[in-house]
Parts: sequence; C-alpha cells; structure tokens
Amino acid sequence: MAVFPAAITPLDRDLEPATDLLCAHARELLAVGCGGVLVLGTTGEAASLSLAARMRIVEAVGEAGLAPRAIIGTGACSLDETVRLTRLALEVGCPRVLVLPPYYYKGVSDDGLFDYFAMLVERVDDPDLRLHLYHFPAMAVICFSYALIGRLRAAFGEVIAGIKDSSGDRDHTLGLVERFPELAVYAGTERLLLEVVERGGAGCISATANVTAALAARLLETSGAERVELSDRLAAARAALEALPVIAAMKQLYAWRMGDEGLARVLPPLRPLSAEEQRILRATAAEHALLAL
Amino acid sequence: MAVFPAAITPLDRDLEPATDLLCAHARELLAVGCGGVLVLGTTGEAASLSLAARMRIVEAVGEAGLAPRAIIGTGACSLDETVRLTRLALEVGCPRVLVLPPYYYKGVSDDGLFDYFAMLVERVDDPDLRLHLYHFPAMAVICFSYALIGRLRAAFGEVIAGIKDSSGDRDHTLGLVERFPELAVYAGTERLLLEVVERGGAGCISATANVTAALAARLLETSGAERVELSDRLAAARAALEALPVIAAMKQLYAWRMGDEGLARVLPPLRPLSAEEQRILRATAAEHALLAL
Repeated sequence: MAVFPAAITPLDRDLEPATDLLCAHARELLAVGCGGVLVLGTTGEAASLSLAARMRIVEAVGEAGLAPRAIIGTGACSLDETVRLTRLALEVGCPRVLVLPPYYYKGVSDDGLFDYFAMLVERVDDPDLRLHLYHFPAMAVICFSYALIGRLRAAFGEVIAGIKDSSGDRDHTLGLVERFPELAVYAGTERLLLEVVERGGAGCISATANVTAALAARLLETSGAERVELSDRLAAARAALEALPVIAAMKQLYAWRMGDEGLARVLPPLRPLSAEEQRILRATAAEHALLAL
Repeated sequence: MAVFPAAITPLDRDLEPATDLLCAHARELLAVGCGGVLVLGTTGEAASLSLAARMRIVEAVGEAGLAPRAIIGTGACSLDETVRLTRLALEVGCPRVLVLPPYYYKGVSDDGLFDYFAMLVERVDDPDLRLHLYHFPAMAVICFSYALIGRLRAAFGEVIAGIKDSSGDRDHTLGLVERFPELAVYAGTERLLLEVVERGGAGCISATANVTAALAARLLETSGAERVELSDRLAAARAALEALPVIAAMKQLYAWRMGDEGLARVLPPLRPLSAEEQRILRATAAEHALLAL
C-alpha cells in the first residue's frame, strides 16, 4: 500500500525542467511518508516536454538515488520514444514505468493497442520491467478495456504489473481491484484511497498528493474512525482543489511554499492561475492546511 | 487552388520510414497534377513517428527538391519539438507547415492555445513562415475556435497563412472560407473540394487523394457539368474508402500498386487491413479505378 504523488515538474525561466528542484520536491514527498513518487505523469506535464527533456529528468532521478522509489511516466504516441524512455528508466534503476496508450489516433482497436504494448515489452526485452498501464479517459481518450488488460497480463505475466485508474469513476476503479487481484491497482485520487486499499488495491497515484502527501500517507498508517476521518479530510481537500485547474494549482502552491512566484510556471497549453483563481486557492490552502507539506 | 494528398509514410521492415519511397510517391502525386503534397500529416502517421524519424523525413523532402511543393506537418504536443521541426522545415526550404494544437491536455483554454502558437511563431522567428492550422476534432479533440483563429491572424498576419479543416463538417468548412478570406482554407476531403474552391477556398488536403489524386487535380482544371461529374465521382470514391480504416487502406492500395505487400505496414496502434477488409478494398479499387494513379 502506498501513496504516490504525481510530482509537478518545476520549470526554470526558459521553461526547461529544473531537475534539482524536482528531485528535492520528490525527496520531501518521501520524507513525509509517501511510499514513492510518480515522475513525468500528466501533472508533471510530460506530454508537453520534449523527449530530450524527459530523458534528462529520468537521468536526474537516477543520479539522485530516487529510482527505487519512483514510477516514471514513459508513454509517448511514438512507440520508438516509449521504448527509449522505458529502457532509460530501467538503466537508471527504475523498473516501474507508467505508460499511456498512444493517444493521437482515435477509434483504434484493442488489437492495435495490444500490438503497441506487445512491441514495447518485446523491444525493451527486460524481465525486470514492471509496466503500469495508465488509464485516463478524460485526457488520453483511448482507454484500456478489461479485455485488453487481461490479454496483456496473460501474455506478459508479472511484467504487466499494475494500473493507474484516473477515470475518477469509483465503480471502475473498484472493478479493477476486484477483477485483477494480481495487478497493483492505484486510484488516481485520494478520494478513493481508503476504499481501494481496504479492498486489496495498491493505493493511489494522485496530482493533489503534491500537497496532501502527509495526510494521505498517514491514512495508510491508521485504522478505524481515525482512518475514516482522514479520508473525509482528503476528499474535502481534493474536491476543493478540483474546482481549480489542478496542475496549475499544484504549481502555484509549490511556488508559494518555495517563496518563488516563478515556480508557478506551466508549459503551454496550460496557463498559470488567474488572480481570482489564486485568491480561491489561498483560501482553500488555508482551510485545508495545504501549504506546509 | 490546389489538391494536396496527405501522403502515406511507407515503412521498411524495421518500421522505419522509407524516405526514398515517400519522396518517389510524392513526385508521382505531383506528376498527375496535384498542386502539392502534405508530408507528415495524420495519414503520414506523424504522431506515431519519433522526432528523429520526422526530422529525417523533413531532411529527405528537402534533399529531394520537394520542399517548395510541400506542406509539412510539424505539430507535436511539446512546443519545443514543434519549434524544432518547424525550423527544420524552413531550413530545408519549406515555409508551409501544418500544425496541430497540442492534443494531450483536454479542456484547455483558447488563451492557452494562443500562448502555444504565439510562442511557436516567436521562437521560430522567421517572417517566411507560413503556418497552417490543423483543425481535426475527431483526432486532436482540441479545436480551433473562430475566435482563436481570428486572434492568431490579427496578431501574426500572413504568417498565419491557412487552415486545414478535417472536421468533415460542410457548414464549418464553408464557414471558414466565408469568415477568413485572407486564409488559405483547405477541406480535409475531396467531397467538399468543388464547393470550397467555387467559394474562394484554397482546395483540399486529403488522405484519400493518395489514390484519387489525378481525378481531384483534374476537377480544378474543368468547369460546368464536367466538374460536377468529377466531384460526384470523387465523393463516391471517398465514401467507399471511408467505410474502411482509411490510412491502412491507403497503404494497402500503395502496396498493391508497388507490388510489395510489405508496404502495407502501419505503425501501432494502427493495424493493417484484415483479409475481409482487403477484399472490400479490392472491389472498391476496381469500381472507382483507384489502383493506377
């Protein structure tokens, strides 16, 4: 059981990843009790970064000694690039990767998606690989059907290690936990953390855990009424944060915490929060105690 | 007025682009009367190719002397990569590029999309750039609103040179022609070619023009009843081809024409046509005389 914040990627003035800040942020998240950290997920703006920038981040994670605690997002529309990033993750000591389906072409078949993942596993050709499927209908549009997940697991065994369900759909997430007890099933939101772990799931990988990390990690250490109370607090914080553009809000809170407004930078097409959104975020942060990790 | 086939990207056994075959195919399309050719569009499987492979194709187009007749698809979710491909297109002598909106993040604002394109124009920093917006709701999901198109044109003048409308929505395409007379408006289908050019639009950029090239080019040379008849023939061929997975069908027809089944290869998540689909395609090709260019 573990909470994995989906780490933001701090950017420098030239909108290049500030890998030192990213690694320091990851260490802080681990220090407050998180079981690990997701690097280069949706919150980490992976899709907006060049392959070269993503490779620099993977290398930095390795050099910082964070690889054993990390899951790295390595999915790209180009199979070649997904292979390259996945191999690099393994090379730096991070066998756990999170892979989106190729998301440009729509209306593709499960057979076509199976081809993509089969070729990925075969080309990476490393039994240590622990591939986590990234199910995120609202962003990727392309989805992992139960049938496809089952086929991949049947074909590649423990190399198909888990799934992050960012559907936000409780029934779907709990359905995955029930149907695939051999997979590490992560909810994409702290709101479902308690139910997921109580039914045998692996935990959550969540954008908002950049700021709820300590609370979410504590939930896993407790039980009974205290656990339920923590879950309710997490759900309330999550709901408040979801009313804002979440990635920009995470970066704004980080910027405030670090005392450097520039760290609120995001890559286009995302935008930083407006003044009004910042006002709402300040109130939310105060109400839910989100500024100190 | 011109017809631009959206060229397929032939692949070798290792699924690497066969740039010599691509350039030869482009030359053939020009030889039968097309005004130009789109390289690295959706039909060219650009999103499934690595940045490195896309760069090799841009260089090959330049070396083959095709750059003045080409539009090159340079859009990527990463602004850095779009800048790099666009600069390279200009370097090889191809100022006309076709750019998708960044398509991973959904629910983004027109302001965020404006940022992306403004930064692209500013970073490329070349007054020769002729940027064509790629509107393809069914694939990219992210769309160009009329307001965004107008803002971009107002901000960057003739650098915002055109738009390809792959919505397949007649009213939308003709609406663009009417609202933006200063832009080169291309329909994404031969079905709308006649109406678009008769109202002052620029022509079409179309997947199926890989096989209807001669017919579509001839439409622009004719008038009156002959033109209408050609338009009807094109619409019928298009409708028949759209009943199949179009990209795989274009590659299958190319493979048959070249006498090399291997050239039907596609990149995952696309799949080659099934035996039954091939049977239907053979009948369609015979009925509409699509095998000889």
